[in-house]
Amino acid sequence: MEALDTSVSPPARVAEMDEGISIDELRLAARNHGMPLEALRYDVTPVGLHYVLTHYDIPYVDVETWHLEIGGEVERPLTLGLDDVRSRERVTRRVTLECAGNGRATLTPRPVSQPWVDEAVGTAEWTGTPLAPLLREAGLHPSAVDVAFTGADHGVERGVEQTYQRGLPLAEAMRDDVLLVYGMNGQPLPPQHGAPLRLLVPGWYGMAQVKWLADVRVLDAPFDGYQNSTAYRLKQDPDEPGEPVTRIRPKALLQPPGFPDFQTRTRIVERGTHLLTGRAWSGWGQATRVDVSVDGGRTWHEARLGPPPDQFEWRSWQWSWDAHMQGQVDLCVRASDAEGNVQPVEQMWNRQGVANNHVQRVTVVVR
Amino acid sequence: MEALDTSVSPPARVAEMDEGISIDELRLAARNHGMPLEALRYDVTPVGLHYVLTHYDIPYVDVETWHLEIGGEVERPLTLGLDDVRSRERVTRRVTLECAGNGRATLTPRPVSQPWVDEAVGTAEWTGTPLAPLLREAGLHPSAVDVAFTGADHGVERGVEQTYQRGLPLAEAMRDDVLLVYGMNGQPLPPQHGAPLRLLVPGWYGMAQVKWLADVRVLDAPFDGYQNSTAYRLKQDPDEPGEPVTRIRPKALLQPPGFPDFQTRTRIVERGTHLLTGRAWSGWGQATRVDVSVDGGRTWHEARLGPPPDQFEWRSWQWSWDAHMQGQVDLCVRASDAEGNVQPVEQMWNRQGVANNHVQRVTVVVR
Repeated sequence: MEALDTSVSPPARVAEMDEGISIDELRLAARNHGMPLEALRYDVTPVGLHYVLTHYDIPYVDVETWHLEIGGEVERPLTLGLDDVRSRERVTRRVTLECAGNGRATLTPRPVSQPWVDEAVGTAEWTGTPLAPLLREAGLHPSAVDVAFTGADHGVERGVEQTYQRGLPLAEAMRDDVLLVYGMNGQPLPPQHGAPLRLLVPGWYGMAQVKWLADVRVLDAPFDGYQNSTAYRLKQDPDEPGEPVTRIRPKALLQPPGFPDFQTRTRIVERGTHLLTGRAWSGWGQATRVDVSVDGGRTWHEARLGPPPDQFEWRSWQWSWDAHMQGQVDLCVRASDAEGNVQPVEQMWNRQGVANNHVQRVTVVVR
Repeated sequence: MEALDTSVSPPARVAEMDEGISIDELRLAARNHGMPLEALRYDVTPVGLHYVLTHYDIPYVDVETWHLEIGGEVERPLTLGLDDVRSRERVTRRVTLECAGNGRATLTPRPVSQPWVDEAVGTAEWTGTPLAPLLREAGLHPSAVDVAFTGADHGVERGVEQTYQRGLPLAEAMRDDVLLVYGMNGQPLPPQHGAPLRLLVPGWYGMAQVKWLADVRVLDAPFDGYQNSTAYRLKQDPDEPGEPVTRIRPKALLQPPGFPDFQTRTRIVERGTHLLTGRAWSGWGQATRVDVSVDGGRTWHEARLGPPPDQFEWRSWQWSWDAHMQGQVDLCVRASDAEGNVQPVEQMWNRQGVANNHVQRVTVVVR
């Protein structure tokens, strides 16, 4: 493509320390949306409350002419219509998804991109068919190492024109629980979640869950497209290659108690005992411990966990708070997982603001 | 209630001229959301793409114990369960709703509140039962002048603790097309749109469409609660009473052509002919004319309108754009309605940033 002015497609940057959120960032926040935190009350997030992040536009896909190509390093390339996909083994799985950029706008300094606060998460019942049997049916060449998934969404990002495309290591793509999804919460997949078909890679951040899926291509070398080699990298300096973002780091969120002020979202609660509740999850292993702080993270109290959920589904927790002192407090919550990962209290900053799991703070006034 | 610190519940204010969007405004933008403008392609906006604005939290409502009270200046107060409401006359109506604050963040200076850009709109098929027969059944007293509708959502706004409540003149409440709604797009009403029951007042801005409806009270004097007497007023100075916000002013929106840059949302189109499409609506009368500009509003071209829709449903339009010059242009569109109202090109500023219908600008690079 012809070079685009950087006013049209600016390079990645970090905001100045005193720089307010720009109209460009706001425009992204107005069209993408998080899950309002009171929706932590639902085991399964209703459609419209689940977070949505679309890099470009939600594409128009004509289901009548749509088909999925499976090709590359395979013996027998496949072309499947939606009915072909739907006629195969059907699996429904409850999986929590989180955007890799969740929490970005709370970082100091703030990487300029989609400015999430805490809310880019949700849990759905996804219905689809496993990918692995299709790849086996196509006949993988011994040379196969990576699988590239291409959506129907097209745009420009940091000067690079592209159709959204992500690579996944073959071993991950062949996992039993990786699905081609056409249903959400018992309904057809909505447009904003990738209709007619999307990828589901349980445990991984949202960038791997390619929507509006059109092409699955088996590669004999690691995929080096923009969304793997440039975006979604953990790095401190713009010029280092960085480490790839993969699975979801452990995180807990608290359903804000009491009621809010409209503008500040500060909560008001009455003096007394309040049952604090929320959810915890990790893509590395089940959430095995949740701790709550009512003094901004200085001291911690172990919460009671709900029953073990499905492997990559959030886990409920609760803790009874005796709010006996009037005044303002910051509630915090942190999760640990079965692999020994512990959510950090302070930020672990990186340049793209990805895979950030520092603790949520909910400001509450006890009266 | 006890007085709240203004850091918890700040007074209404207007941003400084060089003030970026604050984290408080961003937090609202991350939980509420607009309709991504590519969704202008749908006659009926899919759930999850329709705009949502919640003043406080989406409340938890137990459908088993929920009921609606109809009382005040009536002979026979009524208490209705959801089954009672659903067993009455059933009507489905296609209605476009828009938030009164739509466009607020584009005003100069910017009123500090929910920072919408252009997207706080949507059209749904709402299913419910007319309100008027219920009020007639309850037996209106001759003293009746206003009806107050109370939701289940509770919070603080500009220092005033309140349960969301709006008054509507009796003549409006008695219109045949005012509904108590329990269905949206053929499905049960979702939580964020007011489940189990909400009010629908076609033609009025969103603040009148009370969600999580719990109480309908007929009054013998004009309702003077916060959401009518303080919020949703057209005013220039903080101390003037201002005029109430009522019906939706005419507006047209353009589905952005081509494809976007991720960060700036600037569009890229190829040189050639492009069919520009979009929607136009007004709560005062049908949209009767749409004009398009490809030079930022200096010159205008009349678009072709789609067939007349339902009375308060948006109307489609199209215009063929011969994009023969390379470079950057601002596309604009404006609507006129059957009552002779014309959408203004320049902003008509007011302190709360409400009922703002200045024209959308879509920046496009032709290459």
